[in-house]
Amino acid sequence: MRPTRALSRANALTPTVRAALASASAQADAAADAASAPGPSETTVNGWVRSVRAHKNVAFAEVDDGSGASVQAVLKGGTADGITLGASVRLRGTLLPSRGRGQALELQVAEAAVLGPSDPDAYPIQKKALPAPVLREHAHLRFRTTQTAAVMRVRDALARDWHDWFEDHEFVHVHTPVLTSSDCEGAGEVFTIAQSLPGPTADAPPPFFPRPTNLSVSGQLHLEAPTHALGRAYTLSPAFRAEPSMTSRHLAEFYMLEAEVAFVDELGGLLDVAEAAFRGVLSRLLAYDSRRAVRARADLTRIAELAAVEGEGEGGEGERHADADADAGPLDHLLAAATTPFARITYTDAVALLADEHAAVPFAHAPTWGDGLSSEHEKWLAGTHFNGPVFVTDYPAPLKPFYMLPSGPEAASAAPGPTVACFDLLFPGIGEMAGGSMREHRLDELRARMAEHGLSEAEYDWYLDLRRFGSVAHGGWGMGWERWVCWVTGVGNVRDVVAFPRWAGSCRF
Amino acid sequence: MRPTRALSRANALTPTVRAALASASAQADAAADAASAPGPSETTVNGWVRSVRAHKNVAFAEVDDGSGASVQAVLKGGTADGITLGASVRLRGTLLPSRGRGQALELQVAEAAVLGPSDPDAYPIQKKALPAPVLREHAHLRFRTTQTAAVMRVRDALARDWHDWFEDHEFVHVHTPVLTSSDCEGAGEVFTIAQSLPGPTADAPPPFFPRPTNLSVSGQLHLEAPTHALGRAYTLSPAFRAEPSMTSRHLAEFYMLEAEVAFVDELGGLLDVAEAAFRGVLSRLLAYDSRRAVRARADLTRIAELAAVEGEGEGGEGERHADADADAGPLDHLLAAATTPFARITYTDAVALLADEHAAVPFAHAPTWGDGLSSEHEKWLAGTHFNGPVFVTDYPAPLKPFYMLPSGPEAASAAPGPTVACFDLLFPGIGEMAGGSMREHRLDELRARMAEHGLSEAEYDWYLDLRRFGSVAHGGWGMGWERWVCWVTGVGNVRDVVAFPRWAGSCRF
Repeated sequence: MRPTRALSRANALTPTVRAALASASAQADAAADAASAPGPSETTVNGWVRSVRAHKNVAFAEVDDGSGASVQAVLKGGTADGITLGASVRLRGTLLPSRGRGQALELQVAEAAVLGPSDPDAYPIQKKALPAPVLREHAHLRFRTTQTAAVMRVRDALARDWHDWFEDHEFVHVHTPVLTSSDCEGAGEVFTIAQSLPGPTADAPPPFFPRPTNLSVSGQLHLEAPTHALGRAYTLSPAFRAEPSMTSRHLAEFYMLEAEVAFVDELGGLLDVAEAAFRGVLSRLLAYDSRRAVRARADLTRIAELAAVEGEGEGGEGERHADADADAGPLDHLLAAATTPFARITYTDAVALLADEHAAVPFAHAPTWGDGLSSEHEKWLAGTHFNGPVFVTDYPAPLKPFYMLPSGPEAASAAPGPTVACFDLLFPGIGEMAGGSMREHRLDELRARMAEHGLSEAEYDWYLDLRRFGSVAHGGWGMGWERWVCWVTGVGNVRDVVAFPRWAGSCRF
Repeated sequence: MRPTRALSRANALTPTVRAALASASAQADAAADAASAPGPSETTVNGWVRSVRAHKNVAFAEVDDGSGASVQAVLKGGTADGITLGASVRLRGTLLPSRGRGQALELQVAEAAVLGPSDPDAYPIQKKALPAPVLREHAHLRFRTTQTAAVMRVRDALARDWHDWFEDHEFVHVHTPVLTSSDCEGAGEVFTIAQSLPGPTADAPPPFFPRPTNLSVSGQLHLEAPTHALGRAYTLSPAFRAEPSMTSRHLAEFYMLEAEVAFVDELGGLLDVAEAAFRGVLSRLLAYDSRRAVRARADLTRIAELAAVEGEGEGGEGERHADADADAGPLDHLLAAATTPFARITYTDAVALLADEHAAVPFAHAPTWGDGLSSEHEKWLAGTHFNGPVFVTDYPAPLKPFYMLPSGPEAASAAPGPTVACFDLLFPGIGEMAGGSMREHRLDELRARMAEHGLSEAEYDWYLDLRRFGSVAHGGWGMGWERWVCWVTGVGNVRDVVAFPRWAGSCRF
């Protein structure tokens, strides 16, 4: 009794719209080179109807399959029946040079099948752009808008570019855990697992884990462990904060890109690595001719064009962030960051700069040494003063967690109080994009800092082991992934660059 | 007041051991081509000491920096002081052809610095191999063993190969959420967020989320939503099961690779896609000359060699899985799967096969139509009978969740009861590697199945919307990531292929 089904076929996946158009264009180019007329290009296309215009004898439908290209379908006779907004269709026809504007080729449909109908009156995704808060209520259907589909493809492309950069530089990707008995920052509001909810009887089951178990707020401490063996490690993993923050920059569940490097001896070297990574990733996006990069640039242009049309008079949460200048091209801010060295300034010098500015045009919060920089300070530094990404380094120690190394002699001597070898990387329009530091790698100093912070040595025993055996100078940084996607795409709210956003009061789906 | 620090340097990262050895080898090859003696290759190497052998006038240390290559350092005079097992060191010297066995080059050390000492008596990671359960107690230091470091690199390389395969086939990676108000399987034991633990007073804060919120057991339902816009989507995301299972194949937190494809009309087509993906990924690993593939093959060989030495007489959880035949090469099982079409058989036919076998050599569980296949059945099918990966399709409907499409006419007519268009993919030595199905894409039929399963339509309203508007035939599959890494590496327990494993009773670190 041997298997009866046919064995695997060479390729079970039909060509996407993007592939079909590319193939037909290549044929047309070849025909043009040979000075002959291109032959008709027979193809079958699957996709969803994004718009329909019906005339008396012909209808035009834009059909999109998510591959990054859509096709205009020309439907004559009865072929347009049931082709409504949102329907899924299978169209067989011929790709020919288009007489319409906006596309090189159009599909002259010979045979059309409606696979899944869609009642255009009930369909929540209309052709007219909907406000972002309404679309969030339909997150499961939001992927069917041109903008969200493009954002999802760009998000994916950006992750691949970062992964490639890290691989080229011999970093190993490690999945850091979500469930943890540690609390990395010692301050964040954490989600805790209900290990054993009170049952109807007194015989509640024993807890699943012996100690209180949280969702990770950061993978950093865990990432330091493999870094002490693999040399360079990074993760793109989920992180969680139970902060009731309702801003456009915060989610309860988000992704963080975190990297750690061993054998980096001083903060300047760590900044060099971080800067090389950011600029290297942007170069891939801007300068490569890969399918990935070409599609991402087209998607970024599409997103910017939609925002230019839809943004008028809407405002609110759907608006683009401040760095997405209406007069600038959709790639201009990326090009500027990729081609200009990032500025670097100590916190102490930055506060002096801000105080000078405050004398003339007051900020809402007076800049004061010892206080954190407010969002308006950060945006002024990156947006107005430096007009590009800037590393602000060596913040006052009391503002920062226990594991940071004290500043080097130059920064320490210029500051009125103790500072640590850390940085925030500020971007125009966003403010804080990434943060990092050298880590305290000396056992005795780390124990002293933990005692100052009232932390239990028993709880961090494993972390101290990294300093007991073969410790090395090392540092790293972390970045909120959604902020990065926002900055690149110009989207103004992190809720709109994640598939299913979760924030205080909202965990639908 | 402009930034004072020097602007970014070209490359802040020093060459790894792998890169230094490759560069010196290339120089030696070039010298051989020119029939001249290779010049000495000056280099600085950072790393951790994996072993030391001290003689009267010279010491030999193996130094590893995690890049996938280690170097033998030859230490003369006082340079060996403090060079102990586990210490981190910086060595400056000359790479020269080695007179020792096992390496082409060795580092004649001119200057050695101990960066972080290590007391060899206290260091938990000894040169002698430790049993896997002991190493798990030291998960934070376990990366410093040759085996775990190699497993982590292979795990990373495998993920990159899958990502590349999906990108080449125009799948978009989507981060599905961890926090969810849905329960995908409708049966799994879920972890629930303690949104508002009872406080000391009656004034408990309001819950963070309005409804009970779980950790995802699978991203599948969520992944179906973008699939209905992007056409092809996949995710490599964490999933959670609060099962008190203590087997070598289960974790409380694990990763799942899940893929969904729209416009696939029947189960055979879905199997074709899944099979193409598995065999395509194995081909990348086996046949590519990229740095990634070369390093991964070397790491797999290293893991197998260590197991051959350490496995003798140890047994228990550290043992290799059954497909990692001691007589076979470390890549043989991969080559066999890559080059042979996967077998396909219906559940109904498989039960008949098992019943025939049961008549001669009884299984512990008698194979019975309507019952699930037990692990021994699965291993017999894939390991003994088909001797390779096998798709078992069309299981009885009552064994499977509500969202699966009924079987096609051929499978349905041959079965004594209702079956669904699903598959389990069984691998030798592992049993179930992946599982998937066609999804019920028809609205009315899906609602009927939900009613049978006692599921609330209100809760799944968003999922039903995918069938209300532009539904399409589609299917997908999911795979426990750690099982895949186990099968490839031959490691016998999923706890040993994940950085920080969590299982019932254990969430240290």
